Formats: sequence, structure tokens, C-alpha cells
Amino acid sequence: MKLSYNKLAGQSAERINAISDAVFGVAMTLLVLEIKVPELEGHETEGDLMHAFFALMPKFLVYFLSFMTAGIFWVGQSAQFRHIEKSDRNLIWINLLFLLFVSTLPFSTAFLGDHINFKFSILLYWLNILLMGIFLYINWTYAGRKGFITEETRDMVYESIRRRILVAQALYFFGALLCFINPYLSIGVIIAIQLNYAFAFFSGGRKK
Amino acid sequence: MKLSYNKLAGQSAERINAISDAVFGVAMTLLVLEIKVPELEGHETEGDLMHAFFALMPKFLVYFLSFMTAGIFWVGQSAQFRHIEKSDRNLIWINLLFLLFVSTLPFSTAFLGDHINFKFSILLYWLNILLMGIFLYINWTYAGRKGFITEETRDMVYESIRRRILVAQALYFFGALLCFINPYLSIGVIIAIQLNYAFAFFSGGRKK
Amino acid sequence: MKLSYNKLAGQSAERINAISDAVFGVAMTLLVLEIKVPELEGHETEGDLMHAFFALMPKFLVYFLSFMTAGIFWVGQSAQFRHIEKSDRNLIWINLLFLLFVSTLPFSTAFLGDHINFKFSILLYWLNILLMGIFLYINWTYAGRKGFITEETRDMVYESIRRRILVAQALYFFGALLCFINPYLSIGVIIAIQLNYAFAFFSGGRKK
Amino acid sequence: MKLSYNKLAGQSAERINAISDAVFGVAMTLLVLEIKVPELEGHETEGDLMHAFFALMPKFLVYFLSFMTAGIFWVGQSAQFRHIEKSDRNLIWINLLFLLFVSTLPFSTAFLGDHINFKFSILLYWLNILLMGIFLYINWTYAGRKGFITEETRDMVYESIRRRILVAQALYFFGALLCFINPYLSIGVIIAIQLNYAFAFFSGGRKK
Repeated sequence: MKLSYNKLAGQSAERINAISDAVFGVAMTLLVLEIKVPELEGHETEGDLMHAFFALMPKFLVYFLSFMTAGIFWVGQSAQFRHIEKSDRNLIWINLLFLLFVSTLPFSTAFLGDHINFKFSILLYWLNILLMGIFLYINWTYAGRKGFITEETRDMVYESIRRRILVAQALYFFGALLCFINPYLSIGVIIAIQLNYAFAFFSGGRKK
Repeated sequence: MKLSYNKLAGQSAERINAISDAVFGVAMTLLVLEIKVPELEGHETEGDLMHAFFALMPKFLVYFLSFMTAGIFWVGQSAQFRHIEKSDRNLIWINLLFLLFVSTLPFSTAFLGDHINFKFSILLYWLNILLMGIFLYINWTYAGRKGFITEETRDMVYESIRRRILVAQALYFFGALLCFINPYLSIGVIIAIQLNYAFAFFSGGRKK
Repeated sequence: MKLSYNKLAGQSAERINAISDAVFGVAMTLLVLEIKVPELEGHETEGDLMHAFFALMPKFLVYFLSFMTAGIFWVGQSAQFRHIEKSDRNLIWINLLFLLFVSTLPFSTAFLGDHINFKFSILLYWLNILLMGIFLYINWTYAGRKGFITEETRDMVYESIRRRILVAQALYFFGALLCFINPYLSIGVIIAIQLNYAFAFFSGGRKK
Repeated sequence: MKLSYNKLAGQSAERINAISDAVFGVAMTLLVLEIKVPELEGHETEGDLMHAFFALMPKFLVYFLSFMTAGIFWVGQSAQFRHIEKSDRNLIWINLLFLLFVSTLPFSTAFLGDHINFKFSILLYWLNILLMGIFLYINWTYAGRKGFITEETRDMVYESIRRRILVAQALYFFGALLCFINPYLSIGVIIAIQLNYAFAFFSGGRKK
């Protein structure tokens, strides 16, 4: 009976990974549909076309940002499941709620892109990141409490992953608060935090 | 010959899982495209923006609902396939028909969202849930009759999963009938049933 | 060296399955976006709403048809790969070209739906089915010629799968030709052929 | 400890494959949404319909091209991962950045399709191919430097895959430069290069 339980639970974690990859993959790719190819009428020149393209830069920035944020959380969830060897119905629902806020990310990013100089859109964007962070945190601590984490790596990784989420969320919260001083400062700091997570490989691969 | 048959059948169940995850993943994520970022013209204030955002709340409610319903049926199908170890062409088509009605869920949910105080849209939404339930039921009983369910867990789970679908569908039917008294009462009860399935993990994990 | 070759080739067939499931999953689900929830203005009644919904029936028919056709070809490709245990770069590209015409299916189905009483749209729809059939046929015969098909099942399935494609395509061709007599007759016959493949499970599961 | 590290790393490469297949699958399929079924008003004839369809040919050409390019890079990444048996956080981010430019491919292809006789759109399209090529190259050389490539095949494939990317990118660069002579010449050469990679199976399968 023990064996079959493990087998079933393991298979179910595979399905969590599969639905997560599908939701992340779609969310990451759908975003580009928001960027429309500029339509020029009449006698257009190379200069007109370049001008029209560079006018799309804010949309591209928002797109890249959203892709980056999605990537950060995909890597985070993926790293957790490298250590989680069992699952139950609750863990599945925790992950579905996590995915719910992954799929709202395109909305909150577009909202920020369209209303970039407003405190409200920054706080909304931050709220989305917070909600993803909360469910990622619940996922990890729930798996820890239920003994779903591989014993051989548990001692090495449990605390570091838990703390990593808390530190990242504290940084995002600090970044979001800065919007009360200046919206652009706030966005700049949030972007810097994201870039730090995304481009950590430029620092020589401290983290595996 | 016996061995190779099992191997082939097993592989084919993997493909059912894979196509299901793709369809569910896309269906769950596409929904957010329905929620358009509000465009404000002229001199907008923080207050205007917040007002425009909160006006989107019904759309978000519908989105969350649809995500929840999709999640419930994904968990349901996923739970069945943890116990189904073989498959045949019929089982594949039963699952494709199940997926057909998964992919219409965004439509029926949006229909309900846009015409929330009509009996017809409630019955339509219920019909979608019913059709998903019917094919999930057929999937399980067909697999049972054909002996595709793992022998070691069959006795433990067959009846409970079968009954679970019937009870859930009876509750949905009851909820839908309430629309003849009051549409909002009906929606409230359907939502409550969904929340009960989704948030069962708050009750301390009775079900695995 | 032999072992590692098999391993690599096997892994590559897995990737073909994975990209196929993604393309099919997206193609099957995207279609529903074409069906817009009817917007009613002013004093709408239950009757108005029902009327507006039933006016969408042709769109639903087209949607169901397209889902069915995609399902038929997904099952067909899936059945082949249950017997194909190796692959090479050519087999990958044959499958990518197959997927190319899977992804045009939504277009040709919608084209048929919008211009249902024209010979040209029927022939276009048939052309799409033909192209999918051609690449499915090439996939199977190429795999056969290169010895990629499992030896233990090759003798049992090679000819039957090959003939199955040819017979189905002959039936589709015959159905398409009927458009020169009457477009509706032609569509009816094509639908009947599709239903025969899709609903074969009603006939008691002759085929596995 | 060694064993568990390999296991974890291997699992993580699986997730890279899975998210890649999802992003590629969605990107490949979304493109068809750009091709709208022509709407004819009033008394349309078979001739009108055919005319309207053939007017869509440039859109289809762009669609096929984009599918082909996506396929080429999917095959390329897929071929690398047949030989990469371990991964780390950096390799994951290299692949996410690769996928970022996979998901912009629909945009740059549509841009080219709409402004086909401009140097700027050709250079933009080429820039997209270049960026995908750069991250594919980094992926391979990083995996090589870190010893992530299977030892049994490393000597056979490392140099040939590395050179293949450089040669392909040199050809694309040459093709793009031709736009300063004539845009159509440039596009023709880029298409020829793509077709050479896609249709290599017509040459009798020299490459595996």
C-alpha cells in the first residue's frame, strides 16, 4: 500500500508540473498579441516605419517585464518541485490558485503599462506579485509540514527557499511603497529586483 | 504480447493526460484576454483609475469562477487517471468529448457574466457543467467496466469517485433549479458548491 | 553506441508528441474565441436571449466539427506513435508539416462556416484534410521504411494503419466531389465520415 | 549526494523542454488568428470567393514562414537537449531568454509581412533570428563549458552543433545585408536558407 501511495502521489505532482507549464507557456506567449504591427497609410518612408516601431518601445518594455516576472515565478515553482516528491489534493489546489494569479499577470502588467504614472497601477501590479508569492510560500511550507519534501535534500534547501521568498517579497513591498515618493522610482526599483533574479547568471552562477 | 499491450495502452493514457493539460492550460489562461485594461481619456486622476478598475470586478468574478470550475474538473479527471492504467480508442474519445465541453466553458461563463439576471444563462451554464460531468462519469464507469483501473486501488476508490460525481451533479442540478425562484440565489448556491470543492483544503485535508 | 542511439531517438519522439499535444491543445481551444457572447441592448427578455443564443448554432456546429476533425487526426497521429519507437530529423519535420496543417484547420473550418453554400469553401476544407492526411501517411510509411516501428507490433498494425488512412482519404475525396451536385450533400457526407471516426465507440469498440 | 544532484538536474531539463514545447506550440498556433476569413457582402459568386481567398496568399506565406522558422529553432533546441543531461539555474534562464525571442517571432514576421518592401522590416526580422541564434549558441557553449553534455556523444556532436549555428547565422546575416541591394532579393535568400533547413529531408536524410 505504501508503494502505491507514493506512485500515485508522484504521478499527481507530474500533472501539477504539466498544467503549470501549459499555463505559464500560454501566459508568456499571449502577451505578444497585445503589440500590434503599426499600420501606415499612403507614402511611408523607412524613417516613418522606424519611428512607428520605436513608438512601440513602452509596449515591448512591458512585454519583456511580464515575461521576466513569469519566468521568475516559473523558476521558483519549478525549483520547489525538484524537491517535492509527493502531493495531495490540497497541494494541487494551492498550485491552481498560484496559477490563477500567474494568469492575471498579463492584465496587471498591461494595466501598469497603460497607466504608468499612477500609484494605483503600481500597487495593483505589486498586489499580483504578492499573491503569487503568497501561494508559492504556502506551497512550500505546506509541503514541508506534510513531509512531501525529499528527505535527502530537505535540510539543505527548506530554510533557504523559504527565506528566499520572504526576502524577495520584502524587496517588492519596499519597491512598491516608493510609489508614494515617485511612481518612476518605484517601477525602477521593482524592475531592478526582477532583473537581479532573472540575470543572476551574469554573476557567475552562485545559485544552482 | 500482454506486456507490449500494457505498455502501449499506458503510453496512450499519457497522451490523454498531455492533451488534457494543454486544453485546460489554454482554456484557463485565455479567459484573462476578455478583461480589457480600461482606457481613460484626458485628465485622469487616481480616483478615476480606481473607479475604472473596480468597475471590472464582475468580469474578474466571472474569470475566477471559470478558473475554479476548470480546476475542479481538471482535478477530477486527473484523480481518475491516477487509477486508470490502460486505455483504448474509446476512452480517448470519451476524454476528447470531455475536453470539448471544457473548451466551451469560457463561453458559457462569459454568457452568464453578461446576462447574469436571466434564467436562461444559468441553465446554459449548468448545462455545460452537466455535460462535463456526464463525460467524466462515462470515463470512470467505462474504465471500470473494461478493467482499466489498477486492481490494487480499485476496491478503495471506484465507488467513492463514482458517487462523488453523482453527488456533485445532483447539487449543481438543485442549484440550477433555484433560478426559477431567484437567479441570484441560484448563482450563489452554484458558487458555494464550487467553493466547497475548490477550498476543501481549508477543512484539514479529509480527501486525498 | 547502439543503446545511446535508441535512447536519443526515443527522447526525440517524446518531444514530437509534446509539441503535437501543445499545437493540438491550443488549436482545439482557440476556436471558442470565435463565438462571441451576444450583446443585447435595452429591455431584453428571456425569449430575446434564447433567440440570440440559438442564432449562434451554426458557429457551434462549425466549432464542434473542427474539434472533431482535430480529434480524429490527433488520435491518428497518436496511434502511429504508439508503434514508432525511434525517430530522426526527417520524421520530426514530417510531423512539423503535419502540425502546420493542423494549425490552419481553424481557418478552413471558419471559412466553410461563413461561406457554407459554396463549392470553393468545401474544396478548401477538403484540401486541408487532404494535406493532414498526406503528411500522416508520409509519417507512417517513412517510419516503416526506416525501420522505426516496433518489431513486435509491426506485422499486426503496419498495413491496417496504412490502409485506414487511404480509405478515410478516399471517402473524404468522394464526399468533397459531391459538392458539384449539391454543397449541403457534400458537407453532410463529410460530417458523416467524421462522425463515424469520432463516435466509433458507440459500435462496441471494434477498434483498439 | 552525487546521484540525487543528477536526478534533480535531469528533472529540471525536463521542465525546460516542457515550457519550451508549450511556448513553441502556442506561438506556432496563435499565428493563424491573424488570418481573417474574408467577409463578402451582397451577391457573391464562386469567383468572388476565390478572389478573396487568393488575396490572403501573402498572409499565408508569412504564416508558413513563421511556422518554418519556429520549427527550425525548435528542432535546434530539441537537438541540443538530446545531448544535455544536466542543467542549472543559469541554463534555465538562458532558455527562458531564448523563448522570449521565440515569442516575439510572430510580431517580427507580421511586421515583415505588412511592410515587405522596406529595409527596416527585413533588418528587424533578421534581428529576431539573430537573438534566437545567440541564445541557442550560449545555451550550447554554456552546457559544454559546465560539462552538462553527455560524455558518450560530446566528442561526436559538440563542434558540429556549434558550427551549425555559426554557419546558419552567417548565412542569415549575408541574406539580411542583401536588403541594401533589393528587399525582395534579401527575403528570397532568407527564405531559401530556411527552406534548406526545413526541407533537408528531401535530400535523403544526410543529417540525423
